[in-house]
Amino acid sequence: MLLAISEKEIKQRQKKFYSILEDKKIDSAILFSVTDIFYLTGFHFHPTERPIGFFIDSNQQTHLFVPALEHEHAEEFAYVDHVHSYPEYPGLKHPMEYFKEALISADFEGQVIGYDAIGYGSSMGYRGPAVSELIDAKEFVSLKGIVEEMRYIKSPAEIELIKESCRWGNLAHRLLQKYSKAGLSEIEITSKASMEATMAMIETLGPEYKPHGNTAFALFRGQVGEMSAFPHAVTQNLVLKKGDTLVTGAAADVWGYHSELERTMFVQEVSKDQEKYFQHMCEAQEVAFNAIKPGSPCSVVEQEVQKYFKEAGVEHLVQHHTGHAIGLLGHEAPFFDLGEETIMRPGMVFTVEPGIYVRGIGGFRHSDTVLVTENGMEMLTYYPRDLKSLICL
Amino acid sequence: MLLAISEKEIKQRQKKFYSILEDKKIDSAILFSVTDIFYLTGFHFHPTERPIGFFIDSNQQTHLFVPALEHEHAEEFAYVDHVHSYPEYPGLKHPMEYFKEALISADFEGQVIGYDAIGYGSSMGYRGPAVSELIDAKEFVSLKGIVEEMRYIKSPAEIELIKESCRWGNLAHRLLQKYSKAGLSEIEITSKASMEATMAMIETLGPEYKPHGNTAFALFRGQVGEMSAFPHAVTQNLVLKKGDTLVTGAAADVWGYHSELERTMFVQEVSKDQEKYFQHMCEAQEVAFNAIKPGSPCSVVEQEVQKYFKEAGVEHLVQHHTGHAIGLLGHEAPFFDLGEETIMRPGMVFTVEPGIYVRGIGGFRHSDTVLVTENGMEMLTYYPRDLKSLICL
Repeated sequence: MLLAISEKEIKQRQKKFYSILEDKKIDSAILFSVTDIFYLTGFHFHPTERPIGFFIDSNQQTHLFVPALEHEHAEEFAYVDHVHSYPEYPGLKHPMEYFKEALISADFEGQVIGYDAIGYGSSMGYRGPAVSELIDAKEFVSLKGIVEEMRYIKSPAEIELIKESCRWGNLAHRLLQKYSKAGLSEIEITSKASMEATMAMIETLGPEYKPHGNTAFALFRGQVGEMSAFPHAVTQNLVLKKGDTLVTGAAADVWGYHSELERTMFVQEVSKDQEKYFQHMCEAQEVAFNAIKPGSPCSVVEQEVQKYFKEAGVEHLVQHHTGHAIGLLGHEAPFFDLGEETIMRPGMVFTVEPGIYVRGIGGFRHSDTVLVTENGMEMLTYYPRDLKSLICL
Repeated sequence: MLLAISEKEIKQRQKKFYSILEDKKIDSAILFSVTDIFYLTGFHFHPTERPIGFFIDSNQQTHLFVPALEHEHAEEFAYVDHVHSYPEYPGLKHPMEYFKEALISADFEGQVIGYDAIGYGSSMGYRGPAVSELIDAKEFVSLKGIVEEMRYIKSPAEIELIKESCRWGNLAHRLLQKYSKAGLSEIEITSKASMEATMAMIETLGPEYKPHGNTAFALFRGQVGEMSAFPHAVTQNLVLKKGDTLVTGAAADVWGYHSELERTMFVQEVSKDQEKYFQHMCEAQEVAFNAIKPGSPCSVVEQEVQKYFKEAGVEHLVQHHTGHAIGLLGHEAPFFDLGEETIMRPGMVFTVEPGIYVRGIGGFRHSDTVLVTENGMEMLTYYPRDLKSLICL
């Protein structure tokens, strides 16, 4: 049972990143993205007001720059050659002054330096200078999106972790459906389902399981009854009643890897209208599945879905595109969207979730996580999708 | 029982924000910060790849710019005068093109425009132009930190919500301690405590309670046994054993407002060394409490704590500053830090959490949430702090 990405694979990512820099004639690089740092070092941490950065020098040595409170933690868990630290933020001397010294000691001065953002970004009270103010480079080159694009194609190990995530999302969803009864609050139902699935998960996987995110959970995100017509409502602590449309979600993070499983369900009974919209949504999802093929642009999937919705006369009820990539983040590029020309390739993992939203009746959206294969796609989520299976009795 | 900020108070915040703009001779402003948008509009949403922005025009009209999937949601829940939307990201036409049109229709062209960030920022696959590329301004003025500083002083209603958060954090922590037994996994203990506290919370507060964040929870964040020596370890799914040092955390979000309660606990027994470090940490926290006074700079609190740690001969075991402000975010400026010259004022809410960390023995940190008052401070968290009360039997 695979529950983590190996040091070997992380080191291969670093090598690949460096080879991309070489192709672009970049000598060295600086990254601030929390997700990309985790991807390239295996170091999972809680980002705060205290800046953290990764850099790779022209000798291919990898460095993490962290606050003192992360120094020993990074020494123990990060797959890097060097850990540098500073006392604290704001501190008497700004952390970026220490960063500057670390960059100079790694010979960054006068080099062609790649960077993903002008500086560390945090909403938690951080303020600081841009990298370009710290050091004299021959040239600064933006690397925005470079590591994100490395993350597009998932490795066999990454796919295993996503499959493991799907397994426990499925259990959480099974329990969610079991506990969804009229008269109970959404929070009561989701708390109970999430806890039980988490317990089963940790008993089964044992101490080798590191979530690096959330353990198994199920939710409604406020999409209960009429509120389900808001695609991204937020938890409202609503009480379920007979006839409600529900839009659910369930997953579990496994060493930071996400999956997405969402279902449209009904409490006890279904009206003719609810059934009609449900069936259109299911059909649209089938249309999307059939359009997923390596070699086609992502936009084709959205075009096909929009064509179906138009023919069905419900295009005015659509409020979002068909899906997004998923991996270390819950939403990642590329997207199943009219404006997305990225070509689908084997190893990409997407959500497929066309939706329609009807004020007064509810929202209608299933989401499944799928893998693009050599010939088409493989469903990674496997919860029932048909109406009969999704009525909460 | 207060469970939300009123529309009236949100509108007062907008007026105050506008008066700050007037003082700075700024005509209109654009904000992208999710937290600041919530603060100024009451609109809680899930940020994704799809840009969201707030703007206020020179007629003091407030506007939200959202993706189609948030349009009706914003119409229903945001305290703004106008909601604008665009179909989707990336879309055939970039969302920022729609944003440009909305700004032009609100007469932004040729004005002095304030902005908090050069553009929408998201790690979820978003790429887009800077605001300055969209529109011709007379001048662009950075508003970085302006709304954050408005958030420094909490209103009576905000303090009530933080107190409500403390109440349920206290219950979650009580249950956490009750369930902390040798042989159980940290996830098992925290899941059970979190769920039970959440249940009690929703039964007590009823459907008026909107978390806009997490319901009641308790955690160890991996700070179990030797791992507790990493101040920000991450959940490791560790099994507790006799003699372990534990560093905990518990809270609940109430309409987006946070509190922080952390305790150092021990499983069944305490060694002489553990007791020694525990007592130093408790003393340091007392020193901090005594240094909190309106009119003094925040740095004084850190100076006093460092002085104490030095006298006690444990300054080499310190890895972070004494605390941070708290409110809509778990960490906010200002900080109890040597480099923080902000003056403490009544209505500010801080965590007080000096810590010491000893490899092989554990981490020692309590965190309490306190309110700066006219004369000193008021403790908002109220869980026992003494050694005897914190041994898990």
